[in-house]
Amino acid sequence: MHISEFQELIERTYFERDSARGLGGTYMWFSEEVGELATALRRNDKDAMEEEIADVFAWLCTLASLAGVRMEDAVRKYADGCPGCRRIPCDCSDKE
Amino acid sequence: MHISEFQELIERTYFERDSARGLGGTYMWFSEEVGELATALRRNDKDAMEEEIADVFAWLCTLASLAGVRMEDAVRKYADGCPGCRRIPCDCSDKE
Repeated sequence: MHISEFQELIERTYFERDSARGLGGTYMWFSEEVGELATALRRNDKDAMEEEIADVFAWLCTLASLAGVRMEDAVRKYADGCPGCRRIPCDCSDKE
Repeated sequence: MHISEFQELIERTYFERDSARGLGGTYMWFSEEVGELATALRRNDKDAMEEEIADVFAWLCTLASLAGVRMEDAVRKYADGCPGCRRIPCDCSDKE
């Protein structure tokens, strides 16, 4: 699936409700999913990791839509390599 | 760009370093970017929002790669509508 298709799917599914809730409340939902992802990773629960990664991505797309950002445009900063050193693989010396 | 292409791009750019760092340390980088996204949203800084949304997505892809999760597989849970009510738009009654 294209990144833009996924954002559009999430918009069709959730935008009206997320928009009515507003950015702050929607960020809290996103944040909750980030916490659930941490739990899944900590437990090394593969099914839960897959579920929570999808949920975090879905809420990130919603936040992007509320902010007027197209995910497809946003990711272009990585298209030519690391935005810091412009290399693939990244060669930034300060990246711990 | 396809979701799978973006994950592969991020793997080519960062996987070796992220893998050497490990899951815990990589989660902290992801978490730092989530904080930067909150700052950009709070300031309503459009350019920063676009940057930080891309960064959160990139780190999410790295976490997925470290966890052995393909983003393209993970997002299928949304393909037929809301995973809760199976509808587009979502009609879950408990979603504040």
